[in-house]
Amino acid sequence: MSEAPAGFAAFERPGPFIELLGPLYLPVDRSVRHIVAMRALKKHLNTRGVVHGGVLAALVDTAFGIVISRSREPHLPSVTVNLSSDFLEPVREGDWVEAHVEVQRTGKRLVFAQAMLKVEGRNVLRASGVFAIAAPMP
Amino acid sequence: MSEAPAGFAAFERPGPFIELLGPLYLPVDRSVRHIVAMRALKKHLNTRGVVHGGVLAALVDTAFGIVISRSREPHLPSVTVNLSSDFLEPVREGDWVEAHVEVQRTGKRLVFAQAMLKVEGRNVLRASGVFAIAAPMP
Amino acid sequence: MSEAPAGFAAFERPGPFIELLGPLYLPVDRSVRHIVAMRALKKHLNTRGVVHGGVLAALVDTAFGIVISRSREPHLPSVTVNLSSDFLEPVREGDWVEAHVEVQRTGKRLVFAQAMLKVEGRNVLRASGVFAIAAPMP
Amino acid sequence: MSEAPAGFAAFERPGPFIELLGPLYLPVDRSVRHIVAMRALKKHLNTRGVVHGGVLAALVDTAFGIVISRSREPHLPSVTVNLSSDFLEPVREGDWVEAHVEVQRTGKRLVFAQAMLKVEGRNVLRASGVFAIAAPMP
Repeated sequence: MSEAPAGFAAFERPGPFIELLGPLYLPVDRSVRHIVAMRALKKHLNTRGVVHGGVLAALVDTAFGIVISRSREPHLPSVTVNLSSDFLEPVREGDWVEAHVEVQRTGKRLVFAQAMLKVEGRNVLRASGVFAIAAPMP
Repeated sequence: MSEAPAGFAAFERPGPFIELLGPLYLPVDRSVRHIVAMRALKKHLNTRGVVHGGVLAALVDTAFGIVISRSREPHLPSVTVNLSSDFLEPVREGDWVEAHVEVQRTGKRLVFAQAMLKVEGRNVLRASGVFAIAAPMP
Repeated sequence: MSEAPAGFAAFERPGPFIELLGPLYLPVDRSVRHIVAMRALKKHLNTRGVVHGGVLAALVDTAFGIVISRSREPHLPSVTVNLSSDFLEPVREGDWVEAHVEVQRTGKRLVFAQAMLKVEGRNVLRASGVFAIAAPMP
Repeated sequence: MSEAPAGFAAFERPGPFIELLGPLYLPVDRSVRHIVAMRALKKHLNTRGVVHGGVLAALVDTAFGIVISRSREPHLPSVTVNLSSDFLEPVREGDWVEAHVEVQRTGKRLVFAQAMLKVEGRNVLRASGVFAIAAPMP
């Protein structure tokens, strides 16, 4: 159950926290730029036995960063300014969770985007964010 | 650096995800009910070398749950409906991060609360949330 | 300039504040249930000469209420719990502003919805909201 | 009922929309910089007979702008990027509504602030916002 469906490959060199949280997965077809996914595992659960809200908030925040980065060539690094999430339904161990991200406006300094986390087509978390365009990483 | 200042003790039986994220700490003085804290560790960093926003979102979401739970006797279990966070300043490895939570209204079905994450008195993340009162855990 | 394009008719009996703010307009074709619109007028401007953010927040809040109400038969009255808006672009006097609302989840007690305000196809304000289902009005 | 308590004076030259919405009031004691107030009037009501959420959103958005402007010398003009509001309790005709604003961080480009609307000491609306520092008005 910890593996990804066909068509997804692990996101490489994600940094320490996403390594702890993940693995995260991206579509192998690199023309599909707006999806980041994760398998919900036992390590993600809260004391009620469903996935902790913080896991979903971390997934969606990371998905925003990855999708915004890849929305431009060369990549567009950003840092989160505001993140607002609505928790629509619980996520359970074993669920395959896909973040579908839409970048809505890229200005000179700020990027606006929204996302929906989906499990088998059902909406489980809606999020929107404001991001500041950052200096490229060395 | 992974240990807590005097006056704090590890939060026990936090569930799988907070065990992975934490440890979290609560004041030993149980009359101080509004603070939940964490030491920022290497495992929390993003690829830019600062604490990942998802770590802070997870910390503040958990802090809301703990403080709301303890705001009533018997405990008041809740699930997150909306969480909105503003990222004011980066948090660095070694920082001692305190979530200061204020419950603003407890209705029949919904609880409203806000929080500030602080590092040495500096505001680093502002959050507000709406929570639905949940059935007690078995 | 204060009139609506073909296919829209004024929203009737809107209550005192929307009468002050409006008129608002709905599609004449009652199968189009997700759009509420307004002409930006001189009375809506701020001291910078563009439409005041509060006008857009009021428009989108009202649009959520109307669209949620009409999403069920009999009508589904609701009150706003949380409203989060991102201001993407300024709106100018004379602009025809359409709120496109999408209801994402209707639970037993809460409704989740998002909206985009558009001017000639451009995104000008993104909003999401949480609404509590209310008792029917007498 | 449309008048202000002792110690408040009408906010002058507010622009067309705030003239329509208001009057708004500021403390006569100009050292009190964080409060903007309004009397809830019949024109502010919705079809349920309480103050329309859009009125409160407009009040708090304007209060943020005024308080941020006066937080620096020379004045600091700003435009709203994100506004998130939680509606805690209904406001009724005749209520004197005070917005208490706290600026939490002023960066080079962005300002973060939160506010509470209060009626006779009760919390009725909690808001937070992100604002972009704007060019001075001509």
